Amino acid sequence: MTEKTALTPSTHTTPPARFSHGVRKGNILQVAGQVGFLPAEEGRPPTPAGPTLREQTLQTLANVKAILEEGGASWDDVVMIRVYLTDVAHFAELNDIYDAYFEAQALTQPPAARTTVYVGLPAGLLVEIDALAVLG
Amino acid sequence: MTEKTALTPSTHTTPPARFSHGVRKGNILQVAGQVGFLPAEEGRPPTPAGPTLREQTLQTLANVKAILEEGGASWDDVVMIRVYLTDVAHFAELNDIYDAYFEAQALTQPPAARTTVYVGLPAGLLVEIDALAVLG
Amino acid sequence: MTEKTALTPSTHTTPPARFSHGVRKGNILQVAGQVGFLPAEEGRPPTPAGPTLREQTLQTLANVKAILEEGGASWDDVVMIRVYLTDVAHFAELNDIYDAYFEAQALTQPPAARTTVYVGLPAGLLVEIDALAVLG
Repeated sequence: MTEKTALTPSTHTTPPARFSHGVRKGNILQVAGQVGFLPAEEGRPPTPAGPTLREQTLQTLANVKAILEEGGASWDDVVMIRVYLTDVAHFAELNDIYDAYFEAQALTQPPAARTTVYVGLPAGLLVEIDALAVLG
Repeated sequence: MTEKTALTPSTHTTPPARFSHGVRKGNILQVAGQVGFLPAEEGRPPTPAGPTLREQTLQTLANVKAILEEGGASWDDVVMIRVYLTDVAHFAELNDIYDAYFEAQALTQPPAARTTVYVGLPAGLLVEIDALAVLG
Repeated sequence: MTEKTALTPSTHTTPPARFSHGVRKGNILQVAGQVGFLPAEEGRPPTPAGPTLREQTLQTLANVKAILEEGGASWDDVVMIRVYLTDVAHFAELNDIYDAYFEAQALTQPPAARTTVYVGLPAGLLVEIDALAVLG
């Protein structure tokens, strides 16, 4: 049986329930829904990077990337990114932030597919992102 | 060509449209969005296990599990669980139910990744869950 | 390393951000969230097929299919379809449209699994659909 490995970057806060921040099984790597929490600090509850969409999106993408790297993957391996926003009015700004971020990542492969929908999120959170990667 | 197999536990109500409760193709098993409907009974329309989040979540997880098992998989094979709630206020209770459920499942592998978002669902339904598993 | 290929049907409008309409890596093909935009025309902004759920759903499904075919896949390879609607009241009509569409596709394999949830979408759009396929 192929082992399923939990991917838990040291920077990450403990999940609020019995799930993994990411898992890898064989060549499939799934990143759980990430939000814009800053790197974990002992004794501090999970804290968003800031109130703005920009701060939260950049931190969220950094959190996704940390999990990919923990599993031996990179953005180049990602086939799907799911973006959950809370407000349709954030779409254009999200795209600006997203494009600049990925331009700076210097991908060597085509960008992932993406679905963006507008949902409810816990108070104070403006964006949640998860990702599916295929390695190898 | 690898065959795609529909996974249809005998306990399940007929899907309301032309989709499968679960499918397996090769080592990939996808469970469709499940809700808290009780096992099907001839002549009875789909009926939630109860009005509460607890009743519906436990029935939903049982429904997901039945599909996994129909496809020769178990919770240990699941890499991603998507939880759709209707109310942010349900998050803490969902986590309590979720944790107790998975503690009782005696997993031998790390728990799956998870994304939880808050959406609309048909009247009377408080939770919907789907899952992606990688076998082998 | 297995190459990741972007799937970009000539009929499609340019994505509004740095993502691909679809990607294939190895035997996994992921279609990004599609909406009911008509085939791209030089100088015309993305334009929905019409204001109704029927027009948009049929165009959306055609858009998903074009990406599948661009990647050498068909509906028979699809294991999961995610349907995002904006209004619970559209569920029955969506199912009617969906069933008639897939009946006409003459699938030789069981239908894909599906999750349907109700979210916000940009103004004027009533439905968004993405899909995961496993080839081979």
